[in-house]
Amino acid sequence: MELVLLSLNPFCMFFQMYGRYTQELGAYAKEEAARLREEGVRRRSVTERSRSLELLENDKGCCAKCRICTVRCQKFLISCVGEDWIFLILLGLFMALLSWLVDFGIGICLQSQKWMYVNLESNVFLQYLAWVTYPVVLITFSAGFTQLLAPQAVGSGIPEIKTILRGVVLKECLTFKTFVAKVIGLTCALGSGMPLGKESPFVHIASLGAALLCKFMSLFGGIYENESRNIELLSVACAVGVSCVFAAPIGGLLFSIEAMSTFFTVRNYWRGFFAATVTAFMYRVLAVWNRDEVTITALLPTNFRQDFPFDLQELPAFAVLGIASGLGGALFVCLNRQIVQLIRNQKTIKKFLMKKRLLYPALVTLLVSTITFPPGFGQFMAAKLTQMESLETLLDNQTWSKQGIPEEFDSNSHSQAWKHPQVNVFVTLTLFVVMKFWMSALAMTMPVPCGAFMPVFVIGAAFGRLVGESMAAWFPDGVHSDGTIYPIEPGVYAAVGAAALSGAVTHTVSTAVVVFELTGQISHILPVMIAVILANAVAQSLQPSLYDSLIMIKKLPYLPELGWGHHEYYNIRVEDIMIRDVMYITLNCCYRDLHDVLLTGHLKTLALLESSESMILLGSIERAQIQALLSLQLGRPRRLKYLRDRATAEKQETSLSSTPTPSMKPLKPALKRPSVVDCPTEIPMPTSKKWEENQLDEQVNFDNCMIDPAPIQLVENTSLHKTHTIFSLLGLDHAYVTSIGRLIGVVSLKELQKAIEGSVAVKGVNVRPPLASFRDSGTSGTIMNNENKARDLHKLWNRRKLMSLPQEHRASDSDEKSK
Amino acid sequence: MELVLLSLNPFCMFFQMYGRYTQELGAYAKEEAARLREEGVRRRSVTERSRSLELLENDKGCCAKCRICTVRCQKFLISCVGEDWIFLILLGLFMALLSWLVDFGIGICLQSQKWMYVNLESNVFLQYLAWVTYPVVLITFSAGFTQLLAPQAVGSGIPEIKTILRGVVLKECLTFKTFVAKVIGLTCALGSGMPLGKESPFVHIASLGAALLCKFMSLFGGIYENESRNIELLSVACAVGVSCVFAAPIGGLLFSIEAMSTFFTVRNYWRGFFAATVTAFMYRVLAVWNRDEVTITALLPTNFRQDFPFDLQELPAFAVLGIASGLGGALFVCLNRQIVQLIRNQKTIKKFLMKKRLLYPALVTLLVSTITFPPGFGQFMAAKLTQMESLETLLDNQTWSKQGIPEEFDSNSHSQAWKHPQVNVFVTLTLFVVMKFWMSALAMTMPVPCGAFMPVFVIGAAFGRLVGESMAAWFPDGVHSDGTIYPIEPGVYAAVGAAALSGAVTHTVSTAVVVFELTGQISHILPVMIAVILANAVAQSLQPSLYDSLIMIKKLPYLPELGWGHHEYYNIRVEDIMIRDVMYITLNCCYRDLHDVLLTGHLKTLALLESSESMILLGSIERAQIQALLSLQLGRPRRLKYLRDRATAEKQETSLSSTPTPSMKPLKPALKRPSVVDCPTEIPMPTSKKWEENQLDEQVNFDNCMIDPAPIQLVENTSLHKTHTIFSLLGLDHAYVTSIGRLIGVVSLKELQKAIEGSVAVKGVNVRPPLASFRDSGTSGTIMNNENKARDLHKLWNRRKLMSLPQEHRASDSDEKSK
Repeated sequence: MELVLLSLNPFCMFFQMYGRYTQELGAYAKEEAARLREEGVRRRSVTERSRSLELLENDKGCCAKCRICTVRCQKFLISCVGEDWIFLILLGLFMALLSWLVDFGIGICLQSQKWMYVNLESNVFLQYLAWVTYPVVLITFSAGFTQLLAPQAVGSGIPEIKTILRGVVLKECLTFKTFVAKVIGLTCALGSGMPLGKESPFVHIASLGAALLCKFMSLFGGIYENESRNIELLSVACAVGVSCVFAAPIGGLLFSIEAMSTFFTVRNYWRGFFAATVTAFMYRVLAVWNRDEVTITALLPTNFRQDFPFDLQELPAFAVLGIASGLGGALFVCLNRQIVQLIRNQKTIKKFLMKKRLLYPALVTLLVSTITFPPGFGQFMAAKLTQMESLETLLDNQTWSKQGIPEEFDSNSHSQAWKHPQVNVFVTLTLFVVMKFWMSALAMTMPVPCGAFMPVFVIGAAFGRLVGESMAAWFPDGVHSDGTIYPIEPGVYAAVGAAALSGAVTHTVSTAVVVFELTGQISHILPVMIAVILANAVAQSLQPSLYDSLIMIKKLPYLPELGWGHHEYYNIRVEDIMIRDVMYITLNCCYRDLHDVLLTGHLKTLALLESSESMILLGSIERAQIQALLSLQLGRPRRLKYLRDRATAEKQETSLSSTPTPSMKPLKPALKRPSVVDCPTEIPMPTSKKWEENQLDEQVNFDNCMIDPAPIQLVENTSLHKTHTIFSLLGLDHAYVTSIGRLIGVVSLKELQKAIEGSVAVKGVNVRPPLASFRDSGTSGTIMNNENKARDLHKLWNRRKLMSLPQEHRASDSDEKSK
Repeated sequence: MELVLLSLNPFCMFFQMYGRYTQELGAYAKEEAARLREEGVRRRSVTERSRSLELLENDKGCCAKCRICTVRCQKFLISCVGEDWIFLILLGLFMALLSWLVDFGIGICLQSQKWMYVNLESNVFLQYLAWVTYPVVLITFSAGFTQLLAPQAVGSGIPEIKTILRGVVLKECLTFKTFVAKVIGLTCALGSGMPLGKESPFVHIASLGAALLCKFMSLFGGIYENESRNIELLSVACAVGVSCVFAAPIGGLLFSIEAMSTFFTVRNYWRGFFAATVTAFMYRVLAVWNRDEVTITALLPTNFRQDFPFDLQELPAFAVLGIASGLGGALFVCLNRQIVQLIRNQKTIKKFLMKKRLLYPALVTLLVSTITFPPGFGQFMAAKLTQMESLETLLDNQTWSKQGIPEEFDSNSHSQAWKHPQVNVFVTLTLFVVMKFWMSALAMTMPVPCGAFMPVFVIGAAFGRLVGESMAAWFPDGVHSDGTIYPIEPGVYAAVGAAALSGAVTHTVSTAVVVFELTGQISHILPVMIAVILANAVAQSLQPSLYDSLIMIKKLPYLPELGWGHHEYYNIRVEDIMIRDVMYITLNCCYRDLHDVLLTGHLKTLALLESSESMILLGSIERAQIQALLSLQLGRPRRLKYLRDRATAEKQETSLSSTPTPSMKPLKPALKRPSVVDCPTEIPMPTSKKWEENQLDEQVNFDNCMIDPAPIQLVENTSLHKTHTIFSLLGLDHAYVTSIGRLIGVVSLKELQKAIEGSVAVKGVNVRPPLASFRDSGTSGTIMNNENKARDLHKLWNRRKLMSLPQEHRASDSDEKSK
């Protein structure tokens, strides 16, 4: 019985693999072996522990009781480790602490830059040198460190996580090295004061944290080895990542859903809420413990009027702000992509940069920090302020200018930075928006861990403030006409602008919620929602989201979203886009067929059919498996055996008849006799060739081959919409198209991608790949000759084919199908 | 070519059906016919219109140009109708208006009750009569009206919508009659002042509105005929429903996702946000236009302290509040179910109530309104206030009692109702919570359109207020110790309690967001989130959600949720729960087999196999299709034809040989001869029997039978977790379990339901239905005899079977498999 169970094991394992074909089989086998070994160890340790417990119970005395208690507690704790909430609390606490530490590090970096700048006020040149050198050094270090340790830590990280959540395994993105590189690289990059964001790298860091924690926890409980559960925990980690940057649990969860997933399991919702709340709570409590705050409040609390938040007549202004933000967001995404492509396509630039990888970030930093040098051009764009400081001032509920005359600020408030003796606030704000816009798009292209959310958020706030100040200047007494004067609050416009622009860039609506949680005020919900929705509508119709754009730039395997309102997706069918010329093998094929199939084609898996006549799909086999089969058949052990057998046979022959057979053998008799045992590689070529040919003509034995017995099947009339849904839901790489059990085509991600991108061309017309006809007609030809088997089935097929195909080449090509 | 396309049509139609097997085929055929007819009409009208346009363009003059312009505009408008946003705006506006009108109606009803009560103050008996009769009449009318017009409008409506979104078609739930019954019934029921809610019926009303709007819009554009799109729009409608009750777009969307869906398409997110925002905006704008409000604010704006919202040391109190709310929520669900089951199981009560359907609601109303009569017991529980008024007072930011001494209220404020000369606030609040608790649970069982969210929300707020007031009495100077005094705000506790209790009852976390949007303040996000999460954790571990409980009571076909943290779901496999004794038919079976299969079994679809030896799954056929096949074979036309043929043959025979054959025929020669043409039912029984037997032995011709060629297939080692995911994602009713193309079992919703509910019993043990063994051994028996066909395939199967089965009855039962 034990034996039966053990021999079952590889099969069970195999079925657990269902859904992760992307992983290399070799790696998988290794893992599996490690797992089994570990399991054995664990089982042994558990039995030992329970035995010791029994022993203890037999023992007498208080000390023994204590020990029993300890052992029991230990047992209980270990059983607890498998619970979700333990994992989520640990993850939340850990990420909050990390986020706080990173903030601390960034704070120290920024303060020391400021300190240098202030202390060198006597000499402008030295001041400039300090102002410029400091960020250049930090960024160069960040780029170099990341490059050395883990190049995949570069950039935002959200595109990679999005791809992983889609079902594609990018192993190297979730290693400890990447984690270290990302955390240290991010701290340095943000400490340089460049217009970069912390949010999207932190999503990656949180995912890394979750993956590492999973690995760590799997030492205690087996549940952490389940792949699909870990993917679910990964999507929770994204919520944690956003939450611990903005202390926004709800907004974080929603943003992570919108930005990361195509489909969301509501089951996972609770996990996300829980973990995000723990994170946000811990993050804010750390601030209280550190005496930064008196109690837990919002990160950037505002003080807008609540009894009369806005007038109905202000809504058009909010709508215009939303539409403008939408255009701006699309422009930002476009600009960022253009910069990357310019560098990529210009061969001389590319060559130069490939050689000196650290030169590009250094140059960009030099440019940006030169422009923002406060005594220089920086004085016109409040360059003295850090990102958080500028955001704080922008959300201020004071009006900065009344009818063009600047108001008096508190001397100790940061808002003073926006005031310039020669230039009014409008110019400062406009300059800030314009300069920061291209700077952020440029800075994003540096090979350091960085995000774009925060800079875009600040730019949006500045743009909103600009609109708000203009409105305040235009309507100094507010727009309300019923007696009471409710002045316009430009801070509200800043909040709306921030939500709208960041929403437009990331194609999410939940930035609205992030703004509410960040400011601690929700009374302006309607203006914010209207602006965000309009911004999204405009941006989505013009450009992909920033993360999709990065995915396209990085050429990650990803399925594009179906845009909204494109109802042609309901009319395109799978048969219009599928590849009809499927690579397949049959159960009764010989090794030569396997060999031929491997030489052509490119798909990772091959269809296994019952026979090329019936075309009934039985399953799919991975390419690697077929290679293994072939090498088994033609490999060294079999060759050796063959030669040994032949040698024995010859020996017998010679001993019996003693006459040399007229074979190829006499060519090298002296060399060959010992080589049968010692040096089998030196078989005479012609013999080997003949043997190989014989071997290739043998029928394949699929006994030791792993077959996926239920690949996902579609019907030829499944709509593109439904296909997209199924592919995204199940994270598929390809699906077979069958008609009553019979294979008629295959659709892979590539075809789907093409169809969605070029859907207008396909619309209505039955686009058919040029090679499509041969298979159909080939089969219909054989059906005619093969009447004695399952007659009815073939009749059914025939009828279907007669109706669905215009019968191109009926009886030709029938020799092709023997493949 | 035209002919080919036409004959293709039924097939295309059939494939569109993929996924909605639940619908009756007859009804579907009717619909289809209507659709084709309509399409024809539309096509004709379009061509006519374009022809008229051409004619107009040839015409000269200004008037003609105007007309061209009009026609073009018309065309453009019609093309616009297909756009999502038009639909969403229309739906949003319409539902907001309806919600406002319902509010208006409820307001009038409640005011007139109050007016009567106040004007009859001189006579307590008359006052009591008015106070009691008014709601009894309203509720009885509501119950009677709903009963007469559309009984399915009774109750919450969320369970039905949840089931529909799950993929089960409940046609009668989405009719115009239901819409009218629900709106009018709801207005009357809520106008009675009973503790009922508006929220969940409004979710149903919004879904009804969306379904009707879809139907209406489909007159203009074909896109509205797509089933899966309409389901998506339905889930948007749920968000609209919640949004137009609380003016909470984000909370509404999130609540609808959590309460209604298992999986959520992020694509649908945008639609939900957009529609919910339009609704909330319109709903609040109507209030402004009606001069109820100066501008758009929250529905119940609060005025809590923002700079120091709460102290860290208050958090344990919030946590306790959350846990208590969780227990309370579970108790509420349990109480509600117990009441329903008590009425159902008590046969005498049931019989009595079945006869007098209106008596039950009348009695319940009488009881509740007697208890709440303000001069009577009602004075101790602020019964004078309506739900919204009590909620408003509970969220008040004043403290009602300081160290036991009640504070002075404004004389014109509603808060006065909570003050009683003899009894202090704590007693009033406690009585309110306890009485309203069972009253709401009881009122929910009345057969009127009603929800439970609002009453539960109010009870939660009262409970929170109670805790808050206790805290305020305990710590009169607040808990903060650093100099400044921050008194405790009991209103905050009320908000937290409301979110926690409603979250516990509905098993959602997004009630937190609803509270923020309802009060317009988000500064207490962390206490609210902590309490809601704890309440959910407690409630979810004790009871199903209210909606799931209602689904169970109503016995709707629904898949239970996988609870969180149950990792045994990852270890149970499909082979543990599947039914191995699958009903199937083979391609070469005869009609007798069909007949036998129809007599046994209960599943809606049957598996179609290649042969009972190979067991290769080719597709599935609906039961109705098989019935059609059988009736075609044995039906009247064929019977007639047979008899006519025989008659002709006999005639020929008689004319040739003129001798009567020794058949059964001579028994009734006089009657029979004319009956061949005129009265075929009177065929002599033995002949008919013999003919029937012959007919039944013929091989089945599947030519005119609709086969689903790609039913969803699982592998036997798919985990329960994954199976649940696939079932919920794709809205399946059943799935076949195959192993390398060979059918080995079937899993339907029922098995899955059982497995999830009794998962602990299944854990680890390979539970096998007792009938399972016969099929396996039967097949393995035949394989031994049938060696000449597809040898390798069978070898493969054999090997697998040898390993996976302990080989119970090897060679017996082999006659059974011929079925």
